[in-house]
Amino acid sequence: MFESVLLGNKLTKKAFKESEPELREQLLLAQQALKENKTAILIIVAGMDGAGKGDVIDRLNKWLDTRNIQVHAFWNSTDEERERPAYWRFWRRMPAKGTIGIFFSGWYWKPLRLFGLSSESDTDFEHDMHLISETEGMLHDDGLLIIKLWFHLDEKSQKSILKVRAEKTRDNPILQEDKHIAKLYSQFTHAAERMIRMTDSVHCPWHLIEAKDTCYRDYTAGKFILTAMQKRLNEHRNLDRRRIVHNRQAEVDPQKTVLDLVTQVSHFDKKKCANKIKHYQNELDDLAWKCFDKKRSVVLLFEGWDAAGKGGAIRRLTDPIDARLFRSISIAAPTDEELAHHYLWRFWRHLPRAGYFTLYDRSWYGRVLVERVEGFAQPDDWGRAYQEINDFEEQLVDHGIILQKFWLQIDKDEQMRRFEARLQIPWKKHKITEEDWRNRDKWDQYKLAIHEMIARTSTDKAPWLIIPANDKDHARLEVVRSVCDTIKKQL
Amino acid sequence: MFESVLLGNKLTKKAFKESEPELREQLLLAQQALKENKTAILIIVAGMDGAGKGDVIDRLNKWLDTRNIQVHAFWNSTDEERERPAYWRFWRRMPAKGTIGIFFSGWYWKPLRLFGLSSESDTDFEHDMHLISETEGMLHDDGLLIIKLWFHLDEKSQKSILKVRAEKTRDNPILQEDKHIAKLYSQFTHAAERMIRMTDSVHCPWHLIEAKDTCYRDYTAGKFILTAMQKRLNEHRNLDRRRIVHNRQAEVDPQKTVLDLVTQVSHFDKKKCANKIKHYQNELDDLAWKCFDKKRSVVLLFEGWDAAGKGGAIRRLTDPIDARLFRSISIAAPTDEELAHHYLWRFWRHLPRAGYFTLYDRSWYGRVLVERVEGFAQPDDWGRAYQEINDFEEQLVDHGIILQKFWLQIDKDEQMRRFEARLQIPWKKHKITEEDWRNRDKWDQYKLAIHEMIARTSTDKAPWLIIPANDKDHARLEVVRSVCDTIKKQL
Repeated sequence: MFESVLLGNKLTKKAFKESEPELREQLLLAQQALKENKTAILIIVAGMDGAGKGDVIDRLNKWLDTRNIQVHAFWNSTDEERERPAYWRFWRRMPAKGTIGIFFSGWYWKPLRLFGLSSESDTDFEHDMHLISETEGMLHDDGLLIIKLWFHLDEKSQKSILKVRAEKTRDNPILQEDKHIAKLYSQFTHAAERMIRMTDSVHCPWHLIEAKDTCYRDYTAGKFILTAMQKRLNEHRNLDRRRIVHNRQAEVDPQKTVLDLVTQVSHFDKKKCANKIKHYQNELDDLAWKCFDKKRSVVLLFEGWDAAGKGGAIRRLTDPIDARLFRSISIAAPTDEELAHHYLWRFWRHLPRAGYFTLYDRSWYGRVLVERVEGFAQPDDWGRAYQEINDFEEQLVDHGIILQKFWLQIDKDEQMRRFEARLQIPWKKHKITEEDWRNRDKWDQYKLAIHEMIARTSTDKAPWLIIPANDKDHARLEVVRSVCDTIKKQL
Repeated sequence: MFESVLLGNKLTKKAFKESEPELREQLLLAQQALKENKTAILIIVAGMDGAGKGDVIDRLNKWLDTRNIQVHAFWNSTDEERERPAYWRFWRRMPAKGTIGIFFSGWYWKPLRLFGLSSESDTDFEHDMHLISETEGMLHDDGLLIIKLWFHLDEKSQKSILKVRAEKTRDNPILQEDKHIAKLYSQFTHAAERMIRMTDSVHCPWHLIEAKDTCYRDYTAGKFILTAMQKRLNEHRNLDRRRIVHNRQAEVDPQKTVLDLVTQVSHFDKKKCANKIKHYQNELDDLAWKCFDKKRSVVLLFEGWDAAGKGGAIRRLTDPIDARLFRSISIAAPTDEELAHHYLWRFWRHLPRAGYFTLYDRSWYGRVLVERVEGFAQPDDWGRAYQEINDFEEQLVDHGIILQKFWLQIDKDEQMRRFEARLQIPWKKHKITEEDWRNRDKWDQYKLAIHEMIARTSTDKAPWLIIPANDKDHARLEVVRSVCDTIKKQL
């Protein structure tokens, strides 16, 4: 692959100086147009050690309007980053709509380094590459323009560049960090080739650039970036999707949904039930401290019909847990900062540090429920969301987070009884809004969306638990008990 | 002080159970009303070790709607927190409008502990208390409802409670942390009394609660909180200000402003100037790495008339600095999340970690410039801002951040020449908007605001540097040179 790059490309200083003003003007104009378009741009600058990635970024900062750009180096991770799934540090730096983010190697750095040094297995490397492809595909589908540059050097040039660098008095440890990788030229090149091959997609292609001649290197990088920006401007949000999702389920009405299989439980002994809840709550109090000691996070997610008792179930869980150990999040309309990112960004953003409980009253599933039914998201958008959510949850679970998803199931009559009851209680009255009545009218549409959600996102790693909730006490007991069981099993 | 608290107050379980439902209903209703009001509430729960602060917070979580509450314990600080001024960790957890934050001891914990253990001098303690008063006053003035609770115990009760706790099998290290402080009862009580006396203001008063009887303790805490909430509801945003600011300067027109004293420099040797800029840029490149190695942050702030050359000056600084070491921030309209907090929140929020440069193209001074002149902020609001800004900058400087503030001064004719020139250049055309022309019409009002800003915020710790900028080259040289000088002096 790299042979076709190392051709001895050159650009004289004079030629560079002559072409620079026009390139710069074009870049600035494209940057402005994409800013007005509210397009987010991610430039990933990767390449061989000594190829001058830092110099290229400095040059880009000279050419473009820096007020709109943020460069992120991802040097040593912080403790706050290490306590969350690996990609959290990338998500928190993700450029918002109308801005440019430049990632220094970004998510490629770690797998490339590990695999290049043979300290990562083939399987793990494949898994990393898969995650990168999925993440980039998802971000692209959401409108992010991803431009990936790989700067390459032949072995001889790299050796001499690194030799000169070593002689320089400024001996910054970070600049020297990859030195030992550089010594393994062929091994590292092999890893890079495999990495590029596996993550080179039509929509997020790699641009390979010979880096020996600095004028050629910088000018070519600028050209690649300009071309990518102009291409996007021509498409003007008319994105051709990477994956075409057919809106099957919305057309074909299944005879039965998973919800029809739920058997509601009646005639339950209230007193006995209360005692059992108490028992599991005591257990949960201890388990929460154990999770804290072992730095295991717990994410509990509640979806369900309006008035299904999500709040009450959450309260039964938070009551016994020390208030410092949990956070209860009620998902409402996104803020404008959240709207300027991929819809999962707001959930990544609030992931807790290790050792804490987070309880979601509604969640990222809003994408395939309310946003789908109300038409806030296009079929392509929510159609993609199932896989995006599965990937997201897999990252949580792989990081060691204990994840449990609950669907609280009540039937339509029970909902009506509860709506009416709420209207009688002063501090519950506000809970019933016009929206609730509107949602009720769309019961069947929701039912279909719920069915598909459960069918497509109940995975081995993150299964749904459907709780029959017509009887509140029973539902609460089931929730508290299963949370205890899940934690005990995983601790 | 505490004698008047330790009176043996009690509430029987029965009486508690009887009064609880009404208290709870009232609390929920008040919480809802304040949420609709968009009031932010901060509850600080502090007190003797063993007084049951955690239990009280658990109880509050039971009584109130937890989806609207976040509890913050401020246990061990993270590395990201330690690399920023001490209050950053509190600012990042500050409740947004319409929500409740519960701080476990909050900013009181550290000074109380240090002073109680005699490991902090009187002067430092006084300084801490002053900072707390200023911070609380500022937040109160912005509409935050601060409710401070102190839970007290007599020596004998504390001893027996801690004894029981030590016998419990669950030996959580964090719960035990303050044990050795508890042994110094009289010393600690003395420190607490002084702390409370110094931070007990009309608008952010302390509520002292006897904590021996848990029913009395919780009920009284709930009552104090309810009363404070209801009081605020009655005031309904009709805040009586802690400090009355007279809008003096806007009425009395000074004969001369500081801007009239600026002598513009002409006839400057262009070539020589360029060489000098180059010289200082090389120096800056090295200095930036030195700052990084020594973990010293640099904050450079640029204000100036429209078209005064802020962007060009910033570029002369960022050009030589490695792109990974700086961040350039252009201050535009705040996001809705930012609007839901004190106006300084957005600046606290983006404070860089140790070792990095941040360059602000416009800054927190917008509060006393554009917001004042355009009437976006009320006279009381921008009138308070001078002191708030001085306190903010003091915290930066005390933390070791190198701070330099630039005012780029051009005269009115020069501005016109530049506006016209910009209209000729394709990628600069967008820089001239209608707003620029409107601002120009208000030249004299701005001049007055600038004068007052410089007069009131040019402090020993954070002086303004006024740069004559009619000659661009000269201005850029002055900026680059003074940044180098400031850093060298402080490293």
